[in-house]
Amino acid sequence: MIPHTPPHPATSAPAAPLRFKHVAIVGKYQALGSRDALDGIAHFLHDEGCDVAMERDTAHNTGLMQYGALGVEEIGARCDLALVVGGDGTMLGIARQLARFGTPLVGINQGRLGFITDVPYGEYADKLRPMLRGTFDEDRRALIEASVWRDERCVFKATALNDVVVNRGPAASMIELRVAVDGRFVANQRADGLIIASPTGSTAYALSAGGPMLHPAIAGWVMAPIAPHTLSNRPIVLPSDGEISVELVAGKDASANFDMQTFTELTHGDRIIVKRSPHQLRLLHPTGWSYFDTLRKKLHWNEGVA
Amino acid sequence: MIPHTPPHPATSAPAAPLRFKHVAIVGKYQALGSRDALDGIAHFLHDEGCDVAMERDTAHNTGLMQYGALGVEEIGARCDLALVVGGDGTMLGIARQLARFGTPLVGINQGRLGFITDVPYGEYADKLRPMLRGTFDEDRRALIEASVWRDERCVFKATALNDVVVNRGPAASMIELRVAVDGRFVANQRADGLIIASPTGSTAYALSAGGPMLHPAIAGWVMAPIAPHTLSNRPIVLPSDGEISVELVAGKDASANFDMQTFTELTHGDRIIVKRSPHQLRLLHPTGWSYFDTLRKKLHWNEGVA
Amino acid sequence: MIPHTPPHPATSAPAAPLRFKHVAIVGKYQALGSRDALDGIAHFLHDEGCDVAMERDTAHNTGLMQYGALGVEEIGARCDLALVVGGDGTMLGIARQLARFGTPLVGINQGRLGFITDVPYGEYADKLRPMLRGTFDEDRRALIEASVWRDERCVFKATALNDVVVNRGPAASMIELRVAVDGRFVANQRADGLIIASPTGSTAYALSAGGPMLHPAIAGWVMAPIAPHTLSNRPIVLPSDGEISVELVAGKDASANFDMQTFTELTHGDRIIVKRSPHQLRLLHPTGWSYFDTLRKKLHWNEGVA
Amino acid sequence: MIPHTPPHPATSAPAAPLRFKHVAIVGKYQALGSRDALDGIAHFLHDEGCDVAMERDTAHNTGLMQYGALGVEEIGARCDLALVVGGDGTMLGIARQLARFGTPLVGINQGRLGFITDVPYGEYADKLRPMLRGTFDEDRRALIEASVWRDERCVFKATALNDVVVNRGPAASMIELRVAVDGRFVANQRADGLIIASPTGSTAYALSAGGPMLHPAIAGWVMAPIAPHTLSNRPIVLPSDGEISVELVAGKDASANFDMQTFTELTHGDRIIVKRSPHQLRLLHPTGWSYFDTLRKKLHWNEGVA
Repeated sequence: MIPHTPPHPATSAPAAPLRFKHVAIVGKYQALGSRDALDGIAHFLHDEGCDVAMERDTAHNTGLMQYGALGVEEIGARCDLALVVGGDGTMLGIARQLARFGTPLVGINQGRLGFITDVPYGEYADKLRPMLRGTFDEDRRALIEASVWRDERCVFKATALNDVVVNRGPAASMIELRVAVDGRFVANQRADGLIIASPTGSTAYALSAGGPMLHPAIAGWVMAPIAPHTLSNRPIVLPSDGEISVELVAGKDASANFDMQTFTELTHGDRIIVKRSPHQLRLLHPTGWSYFDTLRKKLHWNEGVA
Repeated sequence: MIPHTPPHPATSAPAAPLRFKHVAIVGKYQALGSRDALDGIAHFLHDEGCDVAMERDTAHNTGLMQYGALGVEEIGARCDLALVVGGDGTMLGIARQLARFGTPLVGINQGRLGFITDVPYGEYADKLRPMLRGTFDEDRRALIEASVWRDERCVFKATALNDVVVNRGPAASMIELRVAVDGRFVANQRADGLIIASPTGSTAYALSAGGPMLHPAIAGWVMAPIAPHTLSNRPIVLPSDGEISVELVAGKDASANFDMQTFTELTHGDRIIVKRSPHQLRLLHPTGWSYFDTLRKKLHWNEGVA
Repeated sequence: MIPHTPPHPATSAPAAPLRFKHVAIVGKYQALGSRDALDGIAHFLHDEGCDVAMERDTAHNTGLMQYGALGVEEIGARCDLALVVGGDGTMLGIARQLARFGTPLVGINQGRLGFITDVPYGEYADKLRPMLRGTFDEDRRALIEASVWRDERCVFKATALNDVVVNRGPAASMIELRVAVDGRFVANQRADGLIIASPTGSTAYALSAGGPMLHPAIAGWVMAPIAPHTLSNRPIVLPSDGEISVELVAGKDASANFDMQTFTELTHGDRIIVKRSPHQLRLLHPTGWSYFDTLRKKLHWNEGVA
Repeated sequence: MIPHTPPHPATSAPAAPLRFKHVAIVGKYQALGSRDALDGIAHFLHDEGCDVAMERDTAHNTGLMQYGALGVEEIGARCDLALVVGGDGTMLGIARQLARFGTPLVGINQGRLGFITDVPYGEYADKLRPMLRGTFDEDRRALIEASVWRDERCVFKATALNDVVVNRGPAASMIELRVAVDGRFVANQRADGLIIASPTGSTAYALSAGGPMLHPAIAGWVMAPIAPHTLSNRPIVLPSDGEISVELVAGKDASANFDMQTFTELTHGDRIIVKRSPHQLRLLHPTGWSYFDTLRKKLHWNEGVA
């Protein structure tokens, strides 16, 4: 976590100049229902002195065309900040695409608290005002770079913020995967599937499969089998500066998912190579944000028996 | 466990009359490789005074046509005993079909010890001789009767020895299932899937998904979610004299498996009804067989750190 | 679950005669803080036509001596019903002692919902009125009878509603236990400890140790190791009509707990024998009570991600 | 992993000079049974040109006084290498004490393979010969520095290679611990106990409690609750460059263990502070050693169903 403060103290807010001038707003997939919310945020940003743009699909879905509709590439090229309004899934989709531009993101949740969309919609004005002027905590998240290799050719490439998942087909009883790390054999695993998750993804699907939580500062991935045949095939945390290779040895209709958003079918002998992306997600939080506060609220710790 | 002993002591074996006269032999799916083994067992049975028949597919796959080839229905109608030569999967396939005839089964494993195929091939003569004359332990296993209902019509029916499994499709992030027991709402579960397993199935897939082992005498099923979103959605053991209803509420390309051998696709609103079958699997073991010995060997207990 | 209804319909409540005339009230350990609550319940019962008694310690702790103070034995001998006001721990303590008298119990929780204290204090009048006249659901729970044997002598005996727990001493790295069921060897287990829990106890400590929930109608105990050295040493559900023997083979300062309320130290060679008690706990619930509703509320199912 | 090779190739072994001249031998706690083995190793080292010393307790227990008996401090000050003959427990005990001297260690196991004692006794000559001349893989392991604070005073200090464990007393149903990381509140945890383990310790007690394996290169600790009351209180991997504080809030007779070898009692309000030690364990392995090979063998991966 890197705390940022502007040269002038945040309490005398009017004096602090804008840190982020060009701000894009990104809504969730079917953004129609949040038209008024997005329009309200746009007005707020305009009043704060920002130049506001709307992500193209968001603009089309809501009809809010007056702010200028930009494609994701254009946002990356032109904007200083992207506000993502929705849930963790919305953030996941846009974060992967914006990562290579280094655009920082702020997540505003409209419903319940997200792991990475932590500003409640009802408080956005109070929370964003100092952030726009440079007072925030920056939280960098590692991204996964995955590729699928068939006969020494790369047939698929994807970036993932949460996880890479290899699945058995629905009518298959299992898949068998040969795992190696930096060329060293780890094990042949027979299971429903295998998840390789980043710290950010460790609180998503990997947690359901029995994996641990990884603090965002951990330079590692968790590799968690799903319903493994061998009971001692337990989740393992591997260094993220290496190369993990997962080869499909057996199993019908296997496939791979990336953030559960992109998908490819696999055939026997295919190898999925997992590395750390050169890019990082730059998440900005209001000052004082705590990873542990989010965990505690999301996981209902300290609320009684279960 | 019900121990059986013939009127005359088994040690004076020649005096004891045959308890099982008509004996069928069932081999594994691709039985060709075990032709000699099956032929040897057939000779042995013939020498012991039995009338031997070969299951039809087994006869065709091995070319052992001289013993008479019977369909499963005919085995059920005419034979006193079925010897299953293969692994647990082979037993699973034939047991479901023979259950309604009440034909007792003996499992002979050719490779490694099975949970329900416990007579090692190398010892079959010594183990079977007293069994054929009535000295054995009988082990009755509950069977699941499952049906799929769509718009109040039954569209699929299956018997399962191990388990009923509901799965998400490979490109879906989860399914949502509404579970009720005897008409009482249990929970809406969001997960990769849900397993309802018999005591026999509790050491198979359900164990991989985190379920407990159920001793065969337990009159219950284990219901175990696969990678549940809610961490407190833990496996639960439900009475097997009730009716479990699992309704597909959400999720793409969902399907149901029965013993991982038969398969049906599901659409939203489909309900899977799970009940105890009126039939039971009658497994015969050599006298002194112990369920716990099998567990201990299969699960590598008492062999060191893990 | 056995639904009870009086000869006359419960809706014409005034017409129905009292089913329970002599009613005892039992408060929690330090009952002083609930003096007014207990007095209010006593008045209510008196107005309904009951003869009210107060459990002796409860009476002394609260100073409510005017209702007659009875020891637990006297309650068992003279009362038709016991109202337990507190949490699950209070119920646990009194239920073990009253079980052999067959006295039915109703649990009234003052704070949060309990697994077995399900009538909210704020609703006791509405809930109890029909129950006192015979309209309720009866829910019988199995009890554990445990004994500790040293050199063929029984040195300790206890009844437990929830569980029997064998623990390592704090400075020992583990204990080793030899487990047998009905004289058949199960395994030597090296672990922090071992829990044998009833269905009622399956949602308490055993659940924390990774055990499944057991529906109250399951005639079994769950045996769950705590932090087992062998990862395949998983929880197992055993029939409750057998005899489980747990022998302390190795480990310093080991001890056994019963419902975490009574306690005994163990020495090497001690055997703990677990059987089903001939007595049962008779819990009464308002009509329409559902075990699954309680689970769902206590375990926060259907409340979001975790 | 840092591969080392001497200036001259290892295959022409006689040419390569000794890298380690002064070598100490450390046996297990009751070393008497391994007298001949230790004597054999000492002779071998002498023949290779080394000056051999025996750890003092090892010398006394075996009567092998002729090699010079050194205390641990003297080994640290004078020896270039320590050979530890025993199991992981033996290594654990000596490694903690030698860490601050930077003395490299080699583990020779006499019985079964250890996680950190990986040279089989039967192969020590072949494996050690090139290692003594500088051909080996070096594997550095993080050490935990723990301290217990009472009323702002440090009352206990310990270094641990595996783990710090906080335990409930045997008659207590749980302890409650307040956990903070770098001053930020994480959660109040109610459980049997809490384990904070290094990557080396992640395959020991923490694994039994449900924690993940951590590759030795991960700069983190796993914090794993033992039998937590809250089911979502799952293991978490925390950065090892921070400070973890664990305060005892409630629970009788609580205590803390360090590598299960040193022990201290705790009173309410005590805080255990966990940091990374400035020292590291320097483990040397024969060239080509693989962490994953050890895992696979120790955990019986790829050996069948469980």
